[in-house]
Amino acid sequence: MSTNILTTQQIFSKLQEYLNTNAIQAFRDEFLEHHIYDQSQYYLDFTDEERLELYKFLSPQELSEIFENLDFDEVDISPYLKEISPEYLSTMFDEMSADNAADILTNLTKRERRAIFAQMAPEKVTEIRNLMHYDEETAGSLMTTEFVAVVANQTVKSAMTVIKATAEDAETIYYVYVLDQNKQLLGVISLRSLLISHDDTLISDIVNEHIIKVDVDEPQERVARYFRDYDLLALPVISHDNLMLGIVTVDDIIDVIDDEAQSDYSGLAGVNTDNVNQSPIESAAKRLPWLVALLFLGMGTASLIDHFDGLVSQASVLAIFISLITGTAGNAGTQSLAVSVRRISINDEENKSFFSLIMAEIATGLVTGAVTGLTIFTVVSIWKGNVMLGLAVGVAMFCAITVANLAGSLIPVGMSKLGFDPAVASGPFISTMSDITSVFIYFSIAEIFISFI
Amino acid sequence: MSTNILTTQQIFSKLQEYLNTNAIQAFRDEFLEHHIYDQSQYYLDFTDEERLELYKFLSPQELSEIFENLDFDEVDISPYLKEISPEYLSTMFDEMSADNAADILTNLTKRERRAIFAQMAPEKVTEIRNLMHYDEETAGSLMTTEFVAVVANQTVKSAMTVIKATAEDAETIYYVYVLDQNKQLLGVISLRSLLISHDDTLISDIVNEHIIKVDVDEPQERVARYFRDYDLLALPVISHDNLMLGIVTVDDIIDVIDDEAQSDYSGLAGVNTDNVNQSPIESAAKRLPWLVALLFLGMGTASLIDHFDGLVSQASVLAIFISLITGTAGNAGTQSLAVSVRRISINDEENKSFFSLIMAEIATGLVTGAVTGLTIFTVVSIWKGNVMLGLAVGVAMFCAITVANLAGSLIPVGMSKLGFDPAVASGPFISTMSDITSVFIYFSIAEIFISFI
Repeated sequence: MSTNILTTQQIFSKLQEYLNTNAIQAFRDEFLEHHIYDQSQYYLDFTDEERLELYKFLSPQELSEIFENLDFDEVDISPYLKEISPEYLSTMFDEMSADNAADILTNLTKRERRAIFAQMAPEKVTEIRNLMHYDEETAGSLMTTEFVAVVANQTVKSAMTVIKATAEDAETIYYVYVLDQNKQLLGVISLRSLLISHDDTLISDIVNEHIIKVDVDEPQERVARYFRDYDLLALPVISHDNLMLGIVTVDDIIDVIDDEAQSDYSGLAGVNTDNVNQSPIESAAKRLPWLVALLFLGMGTASLIDHFDGLVSQASVLAIFISLITGTAGNAGTQSLAVSVRRISINDEENKSFFSLIMAEIATGLVTGAVTGLTIFTVVSIWKGNVMLGLAVGVAMFCAITVANLAGSLIPVGMSKLGFDPAVASGPFISTMSDITSVFIYFSIAEIFISFI
Repeated sequence: MSTNILTTQQIFSKLQEYLNTNAIQAFRDEFLEHHIYDQSQYYLDFTDEERLELYKFLSPQELSEIFENLDFDEVDISPYLKEISPEYLSTMFDEMSADNAADILTNLTKRERRAIFAQMAPEKVTEIRNLMHYDEETAGSLMTTEFVAVVANQTVKSAMTVIKATAEDAETIYYVYVLDQNKQLLGVISLRSLLISHDDTLISDIVNEHIIKVDVDEPQERVARYFRDYDLLALPVISHDNLMLGIVTVDDIIDVIDDEAQSDYSGLAGVNTDNVNQSPIESAAKRLPWLVALLFLGMGTASLIDHFDGLVSQASVLAIFISLITGTAGNAGTQSLAVSVRRISINDEENKSFFSLIMAEIATGLVTGAVTGLTIFTVVSIWKGNVMLGLAVGVAMFCAITVANLAGSLIPVGMSKLGFDPAVASGPFISTMSDITSVFIYFSIAEIFISFI
């Protein structure tokens, strides 16, 4: 979709050349032409030396826009900050919107921050300091304090003047918030409705008081859900005494939805899929902790089978169905896990009771277990011409699946009740867990039937 | 976050009462007070009889806004449409934005559509008909044709008049698109920059020509990525000859990102997590197809072990490690699957070569396999005091993991190359698949070592 004839790679090499030949004007002409996102990508790709040049070529103002655009979940920002002079940084943060400045500054030590704050506009520092106090992943940590506010007894005309005056700095001017003299939030007006209203209409006549707002400590998933359900561009954030603190804008919410999805997905697979462009060694290093941990959990299963070794040597036919039962139970457990995690994240505000969630999954387990158990009973009885063996395997399958469903829901629900993110409970973990119980169930039942097998 | 003192449930019962007592005005006063999203939720919750009343209480215009808000991935709209008279519907669709009208009308038969079209404004019908031609999940299917356009030699003042005139109908007025006389897209101006410019400035002087745009047949995932990376509120959609066709707005993209994440997640778990609030029977019905299919795939593993029965009865100790090897390989395969799916979705436009993706995964498999194999070799050798057994298990583990990684990447990559969505390749499927290969590898290697075990 690029509008340039040159490929990104060609542009990049050209920019590098300008940096290395100290061609300031040529660099600025080319570089600043591009969208901030592309600028930020180039910035990250430059070598350390080239970046040191770049800081001479670009104003703190220009760099601030690049930093506003960087995604801090994917980039570790601190090394970049450390290579920039505190003077330059303080000017840069003065230019930057307070919320992004706060996000970036959390990557620095207290001392480093103090050095920068010392040379910044005091009111900006207070603003940033306040934002840095909010818990991560809450409305407060997402919000910006740069919004447009008017009062109820203003006219549309005067409101428009306010908007034009603040348009440069405000994060969005498309929603205008109506506050009373105590900064209490009364309502909202879209720029759209301002534009189609008469100049001398009173704000109080067109304000929408049915406003959707979030508390400053509301979790970001729920904030995201409001955006999705109500098709918002921005959402006001209020303190517990209804003081308007700031706004969350839709561009930040898209990143939230993205990250939440990413972490749910990573959790389910038992591997962090955030950065997929890694060398095989890096990827392996990322996956091995889970694998090896689960390997030792799996050793539990092995030693359990070992414990039933006598049984197996008596009827080696039993060995045939070990992986079938553990595998199927594992699959059922993974399904149950995925549904439970999703169910929790959707029902959180309705706050479904612990037990209703668990009971639903057990019931589902009983049904799926019954059908699957019956199927395998039939298959095995016919295949091995041994109804008793079929019965043992079928019953074992039935129990193993029910237990796997229980585990698949119990673990995420338990975690969320304990205040952890249920999404980190991984599929591999559940299936390895259920291996142990499945094997135990299988052999315990087999022991009963052994005389007939 | 509701601003009402009454709970949603109380409001709902009140509305029902109004409907059943034919209290038109009371109903309208209460109902229309609420946000469109809440209105649409109430609408869906009313009984059939109550809805038939509602159609008398609300104008087609008012109902059209509710329908604009319904999420068609979650609601089957056709029964609702069938209960409304064609006359009412045609007025409703006339009021509705063309893209949503098109989405809704696809749920009806050709005949039903014709009946409605017959009574609609011809130009609106053509607009809708055109939109209905675009493939699902492309920019074309997401776009709306209601955008604000101006020409380059206009002044800011006259542009503002255009905006005010179209503000009512346009999907967004916050981006204004600059077209030449042949409807070719020249650039974009934000309403913000219009507001801070002088009335008599020429559009051509402030237009941003570095515009990000998408082709009408661009897949929706990529459109979503542009929104995420470039923090857009809307994105122009152009034909292959750079004709401006429409815009995609951020609210539609949030739903796209949400659905994509949902289906990736569902795919990985081998269960559809779209609708999680179902009865145990419904849930079971949704999960059983996968489970039973995988059960029969698992039978392959069982009969393979059966084939090696002689081996097991010779050395029943071999049975101990079946589930350990299949389980660990399955976990590795799931990780590999998740990473590959994510990698494909991120790298698609760079179009990484089939082999580079596969090779990376095989390499990762070799490393993880080596480490895991070495670990289990040590553990087993010590535990069982049998180095040869340890060697057999270790080597088997090494091979099984490498093969599982190969499968975990080969299957999704292959699917995407064949034009399928790689995300439907499920974790349970991969791990059940790798059970067979793992068992085969394990016993083949064991056969070699058997004399020493």
